[in-house]
Amino acid sequence: MAEDFSDDAVTGRLQGLQGLQTPEVLVLPALEANIRGMQQRADAAGLELWPHFKTHKCLEIARMQRAAGAAGFTTAKPGEALTLLAAGLGPVLVAYPLLDPVRVAPLLEASRETGLAVRCIADSAAGVDALEQAASRAQHQLEVCIKIDVGLRRCGVQAQGPELPELAARIEAAPHLRLRGLLSHAGHAYGAADSDAVRRIAAEERGLLLQAAQRLGRPCRLSVGSTPTALASDDFRGLHELRPGNYVFMDRTPLRLQLAQQREVALLVLASVVSMNEENIIIDAGSKTLGLDKAPHGIAPAGADGDFGHGLVHWLEPGPPGPRPQLVSRLSEEHGFISRRQAPGFTPALGARVLLVPNHACVVANLALRLALVSPDAPPRFAAVDARGQVR
Amino acid sequence: MAEDFSDDAVTGRLQGLQGLQTPEVLVLPALEANIRGMQQRADAAGLELWPHFKTHKCLEIARMQRAAGAAGFTTAKPGEALTLLAAGLGPVLVAYPLLDPVRVAPLLEASRETGLAVRCIADSAAGVDALEQAASRAQHQLEVCIKIDVGLRRCGVQAQGPELPELAARIEAAPHLRLRGLLSHAGHAYGAADSDAVRRIAAEERGLLLQAAQRLGRPCRLSVGSTPTALASDDFRGLHELRPGNYVFMDRTPLRLQLAQQREVALLVLASVVSMNEENIIIDAGSKTLGLDKAPHGIAPAGADGDFGHGLVHWLEPGPPGPRPQLVSRLSEEHGFISRRQAPGFTPALGARVLLVPNHACVVANLALRLALVSPDAPPRFAAVDARGQVR
Repeated sequence: MAEDFSDDAVTGRLQGLQGLQTPEVLVLPALEANIRGMQQRADAAGLELWPHFKTHKCLEIARMQRAAGAAGFTTAKPGEALTLLAAGLGPVLVAYPLLDPVRVAPLLEASRETGLAVRCIADSAAGVDALEQAASRAQHQLEVCIKIDVGLRRCGVQAQGPELPELAARIEAAPHLRLRGLLSHAGHAYGAADSDAVRRIAAEERGLLLQAAQRLGRPCRLSVGSTPTALASDDFRGLHELRPGNYVFMDRTPLRLQLAQQREVALLVLASVVSMNEENIIIDAGSKTLGLDKAPHGIAPAGADGDFGHGLVHWLEPGPPGPRPQLVSRLSEEHGFISRRQAPGFTPALGARVLLVPNHACVVANLALRLALVSPDAPPRFAAVDARGQVR
Repeated sequence: MAEDFSDDAVTGRLQGLQGLQTPEVLVLPALEANIRGMQQRADAAGLELWPHFKTHKCLEIARMQRAAGAAGFTTAKPGEALTLLAAGLGPVLVAYPLLDPVRVAPLLEASRETGLAVRCIADSAAGVDALEQAASRAQHQLEVCIKIDVGLRRCGVQAQGPELPELAARIEAAPHLRLRGLLSHAGHAYGAADSDAVRRIAAEERGLLLQAAQRLGRPCRLSVGSTPTALASDDFRGLHELRPGNYVFMDRTPLRLQLAQQREVALLVLASVVSMNEENIIIDAGSKTLGLDKAPHGIAPAGADGDFGHGLVHWLEPGPPGPRPQLVSRLSEEHGFISRRQAPGFTPALGARVLLVPNHACVVANLALRLALVSPDAPPRFAAVDARGQVR
């Protein structure tokens, strides 16, 4: 079972864990292999890799992605993009519908200052008009992708609907805009039952984008992106760009979908037992460290019952006998509850340490003041979460 | 129904909302009334008020609480306490079991430097020993409260159990510690069905603390604290300190329990419609702004079904006909989904703005880079969330 822990694989001979105060968000050397692996996957398929910055919001990790061959970066919000551009990292695709020229202007200004391209998306006439207005004011040529909804029912127009050609025509008629391509995010894949279901979603996404491009009848860059579909898909023909984010860290979703192994999980939370009673073991990582996600997009993972929990528990000290891993049962803001029903008779020492695999690593990094990069070869060192809290 | 909105009460004539970019966390003038109201409640009952800093983590709000008469501040983590002490605010009670002298030392140092007292809690022999070790090294006299579990089953010893007198004796035998009193948090009140149930929980908590104090047979400060119990209880006799946090902002829990009115809600999230499809209206506040809590402590609110949602939606522009408020149905990291089944036929303009009442205000402040203080009398101004992300 992919969720099983291997003590060696996880704790290895990581240096300096005992010297860290808890809770602390650890990033393991698996990060490098994950970055390399996804780059190789994109290269092999002939795709440009545009990693999503929102997962880690950390310039040091972005630089590793760039060094490995990333063509550019994807962000959710303009604030994240400005953090990248200020550090000289780009081009940047802001994959969020912006409707106010005021939000676009600083991006264009940063683009001009750095010489790094910024691209935007639109899924409405109002969005296209806002982009044109900002680009016109800045005397800037702006490349725009049209967002296609491939099933998440969030942003985007339908591949078969009337809005698509209307938006394309509107972009082409706008003096300062250029239609770059079509873009989708199959976020509903995070809730899939297994990797076959993810693969079907990826195939459907690809089919919808190809169909939409054919309707437009002109050359068009096709951009897809989510970690599950990027890992599960075996057919990227006709696509041009891949925008996964979570793959740098992995978490319970790719484990559950058997799209990653435990040794590939690169973000763990180190926590300590701080109290105990007959019902619960209490640790010092709560919702302000782990977040309350079960999976991304508020999706209940297929097959997950009421006991899905808030993370997998791996004991650094001798752990309980019986089935592993345990689950974090419940979260207060600064406390995690581990129900003792999972291992009756097991009583850890106060202060005993656990490593937690979060349900959703992207929210953990955003909550953390820093990331502790740990390895078997060197003491921990720390990286800032540079765009932490940038939700605008 | 307490959850109903009154357009006037909420939006009033707040200045400058249209000039704010979204998402933005707003703090309304109700803040001042909430601070005054709880102080009056504590004063009338003869209790010291020690507001919990974790709710807002904002020094400006802490100063308002101090000016209104707060005797001291409660924090969850040492990092929050150090933020207060560095600003000259204290005394501070760190209401979290610390088990490592290394975590206690900076608190004692800051206390010595500022002349502001720091108090700690313990619920284990190991905790008492860690406090004594740190106090001994610092040549510091440290006051300690014993944490009593009154039903949350998180931290604390039982009021009737053998650990209580053992811990009290251990504290009194420690040369650098002094037993200050007993402390509890009836966090399970957040899941109560109604205010009567909260009142019963508060009465039970009080009974347990009085019973525990009687067992110890010596003068003992008794400290309780949660916003629901502080608002619902009508009997504080024999208690000495009140430590509510959420009351400064209020949120869906006190609304649901009919312990607060809509006009008392002082924290709202301003968001904008960014996209739309047949199923959902999409807004730009997601889990990285609102958090995913239904109620504190991971408790499913009594009577809340699967449609409890992630916040109440109030339309600033003309809203939908029919029942209000609407609910935020689902959250991605940067998107909120409002299911259109709630108001079939209602189509807001792209860019239309909503005010959201969060399920749990304490996590919203911790996620925000700043708070926008808005009022009918002046343009918005901004306050830092000074201890944001301080989880250690």
